[in-house]
Amino acid sequence: MTKKIILDLDTGIDDTLALSYILGSPDAELIGITGTYGNVLLETGVNNDLNLLAMFGREDIPVFKGPSHPSDASDFSVPPSSGIFHGENGTGNIEIPAKSTKQAQEQSAVDFIIESARKYDQDELVYVPTGASTTLDAVYAKAPDVIDRLKVVMMGGALTQPGNCNPFMEANISQDPQASNRVFATEANITMIGLDVTMKVLMTKEDTQQLRELGTKAGRFLADMTDYYIDISEQEDPAFQGGCNLHDPLAAAVALDATLVQTFPVNLMVETEGPGIGRTIGDPNRLLSPVKNTKVAIDVDGDRFVKRFKERLFALAAQSE
Amino acid sequence: MTKKIILDLDTGIDDTLALSYILGSPDAELIGITGTYGNVLLETGVNNDLNLLAMFGREDIPVFKGPSHPSDASDFSVPPSSGIFHGENGTGNIEIPAKSTKQAQEQSAVDFIIESARKYDQDELVYVPTGASTTLDAVYAKAPDVIDRLKVVMMGGALTQPGNCNPFMEANISQDPQASNRVFATEANITMIGLDVTMKVLMTKEDTQQLRELGTKAGRFLADMTDYYIDISEQEDPAFQGGCNLHDPLAAAVALDATLVQTFPVNLMVETEGPGIGRTIGDPNRLLSPVKNTKVAIDVDGDRFVKRFKERLFALAAQSE
Repeated sequence: MTKKIILDLDTGIDDTLALSYILGSPDAELIGITGTYGNVLLETGVNNDLNLLAMFGREDIPVFKGPSHPSDASDFSVPPSSGIFHGENGTGNIEIPAKSTKQAQEQSAVDFIIESARKYDQDELVYVPTGASTTLDAVYAKAPDVIDRLKVVMMGGALTQPGNCNPFMEANISQDPQASNRVFATEANITMIGLDVTMKVLMTKEDTQQLRELGTKAGRFLADMTDYYIDISEQEDPAFQGGCNLHDPLAAAVALDATLVQTFPVNLMVETEGPGIGRTIGDPNRLLSPVKNTKVAIDVDGDRFVKRFKERLFALAAQSE
Repeated sequence: MTKKIILDLDTGIDDTLALSYILGSPDAELIGITGTYGNVLLETGVNNDLNLLAMFGREDIPVFKGPSHPSDASDFSVPPSSGIFHGENGTGNIEIPAKSTKQAQEQSAVDFIIESARKYDQDELVYVPTGASTTLDAVYAKAPDVIDRLKVVMMGGALTQPGNCNPFMEANISQDPQASNRVFATEANITMIGLDVTMKVLMTKEDTQQLRELGTKAGRFLADMTDYYIDISEQEDPAFQGGCNLHDPLAAAVALDATLVQTFPVNLMVETEGPGIGRTIGDPNRLLSPVKNTKVAIDVDGDRFVKRFKERLFALAAQSE
């Protein structure tokens, strides 16, 4: 069955790969992209989204703007580490080989998500945030009825592995720990795709070479962009394992096929102060609760995912210009 | 099949309950107690062990002394929190109603464990450390051949829940994080029974009242001691759930019956410096290793365990003086 998907992106290299995966998936109908801040500024990410859709000939898909900064701040600037990992422009300093003539929608990301959640059931629609929790938190605050209605598969957090900003904090959660904590405290149906599993799935330079050899503009762009990500990961990540981590693409893939991961049901909280700020960890006050809201992915069928990821990415890149 | 058990205890209220559980288990043969430091000083714990064995009429069981301090220190004093939770004497300031005339063995705990591991196979013998990892680390250092031979079910650590010393550190691991880290870095067969599951299993004042009503000295002692533990838990633990946690007894029970818990295979490390010192967390450098050494218990059949725990504890207390 085809699933309707809303991708929430701070585009971002692995965001670009997640978008490509969904566009290359015959079982996905991308009904909209909601833009957020994080790897890049909101405006940069939204422009990237529009240009990527132009590159793939999919300008029929609407793009919406979410909040441009954390819930407890009045503005946002890109952390230096994001600039390093994703390049200044978000796509590894490689230019997207298309320029969109479209604009983002007038309707806000928050309103689009609320409207969609009210229109479709949980088995029809999945919302996939791959950045900060700010937008989802705003959705729940504005429309509490949506908490029970919207299925969420998020990239973020780390339960059984250290963070990637520091030993406690994963990058997406780091953007707005307060919002993430409020989101996990609800009874929403959330699957967390964190570093526990995304660090197990890699794209290598052999893969990017195959992508490049497809001979299309899109293939070359995706290959060059991902090579930047692999190189910077090798340079910056002490636990580098021979490729770049497919963080956001794995969340997108699990939104379509939950059997790719093994999950652990737990009521999570996010530390919002102290040295552990940003840490996703079980909430001892809800440990004995019979209801566990969050499903944390703790293992992944990595071979099956990576094979499928490459098939779909290569197919999309081959049929693009 | 009966399993041979070595209990490594820093006795300790829940250590006393774990000892009682094993003595009350028809499927366990306790071949020795190895004493360690932690909840109390080594000498205090060993005296408690000897007196408890006298109380239960089981002075046939030998007691051995392990190291009296952490591997990187020259002495040890009981942390204030241990004095609070276990009482000055380790048994909630309730006197054990028997005095042993026996002494600890001449042979060291380390040598007894090595000798036993060489004598028995993994399906015959389980070593159950319920305190610091100092003794096990010394065993591995002195006899590396034992690493592959000795099955270990340890109480300690926390993977999906915060610590109980601070948000990162569980009490047993806190005693000797360096030793714990070395132990987890080996290829030993270790099952970790941490706060993830021990905080899910409780003993209440209804239970202790039943124990008291058995009318034996042992029953009254165990009831009074455990009431102290319940009261202090209510007073000190912000996540108090109506009873005291059965930390060490659960590890003892899993040593006899692994089906009580659901485990997650992972290569663990222990942070040995910084604000997260003492945290048990996945080792990113061994995340892609096909071999996962440690089995971390992440869920427990709590009802089945607590029912069995009470049956065995009550039966033992009923048949004691």
